[in-house]
Amino acid sequence: MISTIKAAIVGSTGYSGVELIRLLQSHPHVEVTSVISSSSAGAPIAEGFPHLMEIRTDLLDGIDVDNIRAKADVVFLATPHGVSMKLAPEFLEAGLKVIDLSGDFRLKSGEVYKQWYQHEPADQALVARAVYGLAEVYGDQVANSDFISNPGCFTTSALLGLYPAVKAGWIDPDSIIIDAKSGVSGAGRGLSLGNHYSEINENFKAYKINKHQHTPEIEQVLTEAAGRPVIATFTTHLVPMTRGIMSTMYAKLTEKRSSADFVELYRQFYEGRKFVRVRPDGNWPATKEVYGTNYCDIGFSVDERTGRITFISVIDNLVKGAAGQAIQNLNLLMNWDETLGLQFSPVYP
Amino acid sequence: MISTIKAAIVGSTGYSGVELIRLLQSHPHVEVTSVISSSSAGAPIAEGFPHLMEIRTDLLDGIDVDNIRAKADVVFLATPHGVSMKLAPEFLEAGLKVIDLSGDFRLKSGEVYKQWYQHEPADQALVARAVYGLAEVYGDQVANSDFISNPGCFTTSALLGLYPAVKAGWIDPDSIIIDAKSGVSGAGRGLSLGNHYSEINENFKAYKINKHQHTPEIEQVLTEAAGRPVIATFTTHLVPMTRGIMSTMYAKLTEKRSSADFVELYRQFYEGRKFVRVRPDGNWPATKEVYGTNYCDIGFSVDERTGRITFISVIDNLVKGAAGQAIQNLNLLMNWDETLGLQFSPVYP
Amino acid sequence: MISTIKAAIVGSTGYSGVELIRLLQSHPHVEVTSVISSSSAGAPIAEGFPHLMEIRTDLLDGIDVDNIRAKADVVFLATPHGVSMKLAPEFLEAGLKVIDLSGDFRLKSGEVYKQWYQHEPADQALVARAVYGLAEVYGDQVANSDFISNPGCFTTSALLGLYPAVKAGWIDPDSIIIDAKSGVSGAGRGLSLGNHYSEINENFKAYKINKHQHTPEIEQVLTEAAGRPVIATFTTHLVPMTRGIMSTMYAKLTEKRSSADFVELYRQFYEGRKFVRVRPDGNWPATKEVYGTNYCDIGFSVDERTGRITFISVIDNLVKGAAGQAIQNLNLLMNWDETLGLQFSPVYP
Amino acid sequence: MISTIKAAIVGSTGYSGVELIRLLQSHPHVEVTSVISSSSAGAPIAEGFPHLMEIRTDLLDGIDVDNIRAKADVVFLATPHGVSMKLAPEFLEAGLKVIDLSGDFRLKSGEVYKQWYQHEPADQALVARAVYGLAEVYGDQVANSDFISNPGCFTTSALLGLYPAVKAGWIDPDSIIIDAKSGVSGAGRGLSLGNHYSEINENFKAYKINKHQHTPEIEQVLTEAAGRPVIATFTTHLVPMTRGIMSTMYAKLTEKRSSADFVELYRQFYEGRKFVRVRPDGNWPATKEVYGTNYCDIGFSVDERTGRITFISVIDNLVKGAAGQAIQNLNLLMNWDETLGLQFSPVYP
Repeated sequence: MISTIKAAIVGSTGYSGVELIRLLQSHPHVEVTSVISSSSAGAPIAEGFPHLMEIRTDLLDGIDVDNIRAKADVVFLATPHGVSMKLAPEFLEAGLKVIDLSGDFRLKSGEVYKQWYQHEPADQALVARAVYGLAEVYGDQVANSDFISNPGCFTTSALLGLYPAVKAGWIDPDSIIIDAKSGVSGAGRGLSLGNHYSEINENFKAYKINKHQHTPEIEQVLTEAAGRPVIATFTTHLVPMTRGIMSTMYAKLTEKRSSADFVELYRQFYEGRKFVRVRPDGNWPATKEVYGTNYCDIGFSVDERTGRITFISVIDNLVKGAAGQAIQNLNLLMNWDETLGLQFSPVYP
Repeated sequence: MISTIKAAIVGSTGYSGVELIRLLQSHPHVEVTSVISSSSAGAPIAEGFPHLMEIRTDLLDGIDVDNIRAKADVVFLATPHGVSMKLAPEFLEAGLKVIDLSGDFRLKSGEVYKQWYQHEPADQALVARAVYGLAEVYGDQVANSDFISNPGCFTTSALLGLYPAVKAGWIDPDSIIIDAKSGVSGAGRGLSLGNHYSEINENFKAYKINKHQHTPEIEQVLTEAAGRPVIATFTTHLVPMTRGIMSTMYAKLTEKRSSADFVELYRQFYEGRKFVRVRPDGNWPATKEVYGTNYCDIGFSVDERTGRITFISVIDNLVKGAAGQAIQNLNLLMNWDETLGLQFSPVYP
Repeated sequence: MISTIKAAIVGSTGYSGVELIRLLQSHPHVEVTSVISSSSAGAPIAEGFPHLMEIRTDLLDGIDVDNIRAKADVVFLATPHGVSMKLAPEFLEAGLKVIDLSGDFRLKSGEVYKQWYQHEPADQALVARAVYGLAEVYGDQVANSDFISNPGCFTTSALLGLYPAVKAGWIDPDSIIIDAKSGVSGAGRGLSLGNHYSEINENFKAYKINKHQHTPEIEQVLTEAAGRPVIATFTTHLVPMTRGIMSTMYAKLTEKRSSADFVELYRQFYEGRKFVRVRPDGNWPATKEVYGTNYCDIGFSVDERTGRITFISVIDNLVKGAAGQAIQNLNLLMNWDETLGLQFSPVYP
Repeated sequence: MISTIKAAIVGSTGYSGVELIRLLQSHPHVEVTSVISSSSAGAPIAEGFPHLMEIRTDLLDGIDVDNIRAKADVVFLATPHGVSMKLAPEFLEAGLKVIDLSGDFRLKSGEVYKQWYQHEPADQALVARAVYGLAEVYGDQVANSDFISNPGCFTTSALLGLYPAVKAGWIDPDSIIIDAKSGVSGAGRGLSLGNHYSEINENFKAYKINKHQHTPEIEQVLTEAAGRPVIATFTTHLVPMTRGIMSTMYAKLTEKRSSADFVELYRQFYEGRKFVRVRPDGNWPATKEVYGTNYCDIGFSVDERTGRITFISVIDNLVKGAAGQAIQNLNLLMNWDETLGLQFSPVYP
């Protein structure tokens, strides 16, 4: 029999935090005992989020490590980079399991972190201790850890789509181009012209071209997969929709293979992993087909004319790209079935 | 201990049908043993709905009463009006419980049906046998029936918002105006210029003004509540969004009362009913706050200047307005907790 | 031969201001000589609005009355209420014609202004001097003025839809209910959760119920039309789209008439006025059908069952509801054809 | 003094046709004397398109070459491929100038046409006679022709973005990858699940990967530019918006250059051409910044890490990608200023 554990969510009023609340509400073995917001402490969570009325009637807590230790066994940090690096050590020291959703512990090189985040890196011993929670790739390591660094949203969609091919040596690592598109919720709940409705609706735009901080995170894992340094071209775009990421990815084949070959390779690689659905040849996923769920769906198109393959990989950025994968990591870390609390169908249409 | 029952869904490739599949997937005591589509029988359900890949791997059945009787205890008819009236008697005769989502059995008067649907009415004995499944109002009757006529989507939002006030005599039944707005999924999956993306996006329009077939359904229930004939003004609009209905409703107060009085009246009326959330004074629900769930949220604004009250009532048209309330009715009919399988949080944002 | 006049736009970086720039760009007799923004003075206008690149290469001016007087004959104030009341007298004194788009000079009663705007009213002599620029109703007064108070967006759609019927005594002024829906651009370019993409997209909500400051503006004109005090119920909603307003309006008929009677009445009332298009019986306008233009389209549905009429009136909130009507007023004031510079077709789809 | 010419539009009830009507309404030297639809002949154009009420009060004509010859000097064929190839010779023989918006005369090789369109090609003599109307590249040829084949929408955005770099030899033609995104109006007004609102809204999907019929059109022009065969990777995606195309394009630099170098190259190449706006270094266009206009805006990002350049090129698919460029070609063909009738500002927001 599985006993229930108690969880605290720091950063409950951001979109990743509020998505953790939604998902954990249905988890059979997790009780959320504290929802925490430094800015709104003392207010009912349902005040700012009326959709939670009568679902959560508690007040937001402030950040008080002693209080949280008394209430919780695991803490989710849905906090911005720069903040997580301050909080994580305190919670770890207090004996809590920590699952961090920020970028602070993802990059193993402090120098690279500094370059892309333009911020001082976290303590390097802590960084070394954090397990990178790309669940379908590093699940074994997650199962033996108490400190998880949850991958970025773009990163998750890109890596799940590319990892098996790079690992198998089927594509040329020097030829990788990732053209990614995200719904607006990826930019968070903070206010800016960049998420003002009238500026985004009926508009499509690119941003942070060749500058996005998920670039080195992608390269770090692809480098591990390839067994040699990988540098990739990465572009991010904003789609006038709320949820969803598609990564359309291009690479040169190292030798002639068909889309069906890739389907087979990926099905073997992800065998037994419920949250990756490899599409049959000629079938490419759309973002809505994973809406509200922890799925990552992947499709392929090999073009004989050019000798290139096109990968399509989609996720819900707030679920598999954030809160859902964090819970999947909790499940792995607890040695539970990784699908616990995450077994719903996509909301369609 | 509750045993599991087996359910069949006729009309599985329409939006109400596919929403029944989504919701029943999480129901602890229902197994969907047959998904049925007369037009696509023999094809995998996941072919037309890739979001169901690896969730449902079965083929669509055709309409074969013997086969369905062998497979199922209850059948949901997510079929158009005119079709349900043919299928329901066959399934009832075969000893199945029937929950019909069409308009065929909602109107007690065949004449009124004919006038608004411009179609011959169903057999009047059957119509009399059907219990009108507005769960929070007629739940007791549902619990003793094997044949439920599930209410319309607009109707549900309008009636839950108006019923207690009319019953209490707090508003003048001759003054009721219902200005309703719906997401596009309410128009179904069939193709028409009326749901062509480029015609609907960045557009807002009214339709069927004073002609919508939900009008007599609303009036039938309000007449029962008022104890005398009620005729209402009803307008429907199409909102450029997929899911959600808001009914903004106006009426004259019969005597001076405050919004807070209405909050109190409604909280008492809906006491113990989890799916109606009465908002506090000064707080009005938005459609996204019930997205993907079976909630109906209601708010009030009394205006002393005009002596009128404005009601705001929101639902997800595919859940509380269709598939969700159908499952709630199944729960009531089985004498289960009415929330079984329907206990998720709204998808927000 | 018509000579060209020079115009300045104060508040050029708000949506009404930037829409004035767009529209005046095509006006054959107006040259925009100064675009003004107190907050961004000195920056190229195309920096914040890249869509204007190579269309306007000038820098934003600050607010300097002497400078503006030297450059311009007419000034448009696309400034918030509270600001216009300070600027208008200075520009008038400097001999400029002034067209104000704020609410500061619309309400003839300072007391009413104070109550609804919760702000001290403008100088009452100035308020008395301002002509209320509802062009199709008060065009004659506009033609003899140098100071126009441009109507609100909701107000314009509501009044053009109701005025002829109230004036004719065909509807009961005590029975008027206005259910209005607006695109998000009506809320301006300022940042708030209320126009955050992820909060608005796939959402529909009501706001300021019975509290919207356009209420007394509507009532003031309807009172003039009826020849006795009119109090109306007015609700505003936010639609997930950028542009467009629909007012769905309800009233009791004073005697039995058909929709066709109303079509005839309105066609006579608006005869010769190009920007009001009265729809034939049974045809109701959608917001997209006036997109980007100065049209107001109006349709009717009389319901014999209830003795009520439903009016549908649509405009583009930024054109007929703001910048377009302001230019129409300039045309009238200059004794030009009122359609000058405003003769384009709706952008459809 | 410029005299007015008379134009007929075949296919007036498709989106390109109705956009031609919108744009030509403002053209100072073109009178649209016949709007033609084989399917709706005899009906008022404003019946199916109420936004044209009182703007165009005429009836749709059928396809009658004699009648059209009597009425018009130039005919726009906004007809599907397969239809244009039948109509164009008749109109040419009748002495009309012909501007065809279909794909029928774009590909010089009949074999390639057959392969990508899966349809027999047009008469090859006619194909040879047609001038490919990519206005900024082949404007000189257009000026001497009476038969223009107007480029595809994706093609226009891709080619204007790539042509100068390929021509200059600054990028490796074998490395070109085009990741294109289009609004839904590009799929036309015909009905399909692919443009059903509920299927597209809040969704992002790829389609026709490595199979889109614009691929050989792009390659044909790039081959001319490079002076040797070019094969490109081309992916198309559907964005939940109505108008707009962005092509994000990738290529290897042939030698080290900066984004600023590309800005300079492109500014020289497009000097004097009003409809191409080359963005300064570090500034990338969004689709809304060209909304409703004939602009193509282009931005660059060279990445020293990878030795690749990323191009961003945006257009309004119905204007520069169809009706607008067709009118621009008419202007060139008539030896008028190419901007006539096309000089409006983008609709923003």
